[in-house]
Amino acid sequence: MDLLKYQTDFLDYLQTQKFENEPKNLYAPIEYILQLGGKRIRPILTLIAADIFSGNYQKAIPAAMAVETFHNFTLVHDDIMDEAPLRRGKETVHKKWNINTGILSGDAMLILAYQYFENYKPKVFQQLAKLFSKTALEVCDGQQLDVDFETRNDVTIDEYIKMITLKTSVLVAAALKMGAIVAEADEEQANHLYDFGLNLGIAFQLQDDYLDTFGDPETFGKQVGGDIIENKKTYLYLKSLEIADNNDIEKLKFFYNQKLEDNSIKIVEVSRIFEQNDIPKFTQDLIEDYTNKSFESLASLKISEEAKKGLRDFGNNLMNRKV
Amino acid sequence: MDLLKYQTDFLDYLQTQKFENEPKNLYAPIEYILQLGGKRIRPILTLIAADIFSGNYQKAIPAAMAVETFHNFTLVHDDIMDEAPLRRGKETVHKKWNINTGILSGDAMLILAYQYFENYKPKVFQQLAKLFSKTALEVCDGQQLDVDFETRNDVTIDEYIKMITLKTSVLVAAALKMGAIVAEADEEQANHLYDFGLNLGIAFQLQDDYLDTFGDPETFGKQVGGDIIENKKTYLYLKSLEIADNNDIEKLKFFYNQKLEDNSIKIVEVSRIFEQNDIPKFTQDLIEDYTNKSFESLASLKISEEAKKGLRDFGNNLMNRKV
Repeated sequence: MDLLKYQTDFLDYLQTQKFENEPKNLYAPIEYILQLGGKRIRPILTLIAADIFSGNYQKAIPAAMAVETFHNFTLVHDDIMDEAPLRRGKETVHKKWNINTGILSGDAMLILAYQYFENYKPKVFQQLAKLFSKTALEVCDGQQLDVDFETRNDVTIDEYIKMITLKTSVLVAAALKMGAIVAEADEEQANHLYDFGLNLGIAFQLQDDYLDTFGDPETFGKQVGGDIIENKKTYLYLKSLEIADNNDIEKLKFFYNQKLEDNSIKIVEVSRIFEQNDIPKFTQDLIEDYTNKSFESLASLKISEEAKKGLRDFGNNLMNRKV
Repeated sequence: MDLLKYQTDFLDYLQTQKFENEPKNLYAPIEYILQLGGKRIRPILTLIAADIFSGNYQKAIPAAMAVETFHNFTLVHDDIMDEAPLRRGKETVHKKWNINTGILSGDAMLILAYQYFENYKPKVFQQLAKLFSKTALEVCDGQQLDVDFETRNDVTIDEYIKMITLKTSVLVAAALKMGAIVAEADEEQANHLYDFGLNLGIAFQLQDDYLDTFGDPETFGKQVGGDIIENKKTYLYLKSLEIADNNDIEKLKFFYNQKLEDNSIKIVEVSRIFEQNDIPKFTQDLIEDYTNKSFESLASLKISEEAKKGLRDFGNNLMNRKV
């Protein structure tokens, strides 16, 4: 399991995908967002899975490209909805061009993602496209729940986990399963890998939430406190509502009911409440729970111990990341 | 070829597609736009084609539903881009809900369209999905050109025909070919039907442009003069620039360079220039040219004379429509 090789080969393939068709105004933004970088976690998972089940990860590169294209499509449309000015430190598509271009280029990316499956024979094509459609629709469901939560004051932790499962982890899970499908693995085996990815994806998103508030500004890459500024009802916030005293709860609700020009006091105060209520520890524990749940799925996988270790290492690296 | 039966069966199937999943805010707009009516021309063409080649149009209903779902997806996203308040006399999705809901529900509809192909076996599934992806991407290209043309002053008639070919007629053509694919018709035959649809689609859009300015307000259903208000560089406008005298050209350019509160004088003046330059006649002639070109493709089709007559009648009805 040579992660560096997967990444290099995937990026090489990405470079060959020149989105220089006409009309330029449609394809330049696609080229732009796909070249913006990112950790490329999802496509690498597709290649890992294909390698484990068939020893041929290269065959899975187009499927990996479909996953990455879809992921970037969701970023373009989500950034419009969130009115986000920056993505990976650069201008978002709708800021650099305009909202209409963001909508239309995003649409085209969703279609382009499906086209990558045309590299496979009909049976594999259908399996990939079916899983992809199901997953893509779930991601839309998750995004809608995320939007709905903005204006709701009764979101539960269970609902939050359900939302991030749909919005983030089904794609992590599907990325793995697609690799298994390309490798024509046994369906039951593919499903165990899916379950591994599903729980790993939840742990991954919780780690994202943790880093958003408690990450090191030097290494995190994004603005620390972004979720607090945006009043995102993450696990950190919802858990606080569950265990903090009335005074802290009132303060939290007060801060989460407004958008401010200067957020410095808000970030300090909310972080203090989180820390005083042991939220960093609760979050890390929950991340560990989901990581362990994820690792349990490995037991049912009929793959080498070395491959299992590789998957565990990948998971542990994700959870110990600073970015 | 019982058009009424196709339509009834298609609408019955549409009724069974209850988009009542959670989250409601995502699926209610989908239900809304799909129930808003419309001529259902594209899905009916899919059923016609399947009937001609296999005598079994019912098998093609899910494919027809994919086409109609995709068409409505384009309406939802286009209406956002055009800031259109009304669609079929009712509020557009982004007006009734909001822009974010319009974007996300549209995305979900594009995915749902692909899911309808899951009703077919892998080989047919792949053929349908491939044609669909190609077509959907072309429609995006066409929409981008349409957007680009808004800010260009050197659009040619050829470019305009290319734009409407991509934006409108490839979907008409693909709707027919999908019926042929479901019927497992010979590919060459399917392609002749595609060509029939491609030229018919161009004629259809030109007729749309004609009706937009010269339709009877009593029967047209939409506001007559909408394209003039929006400064759309349709064939009517571009042909006028080609043949009118300098005085008329200057007036046209003057009017097409502004958006007005009160458009009554603009509509009267522009329509007068069109009429004085015989544009209605030029447009009708061009519609006839494309309709005839479309009918020429029928010669290569190995289908009954009755079926050919049915296709011709369908085409002629489209061109003589008032709506």
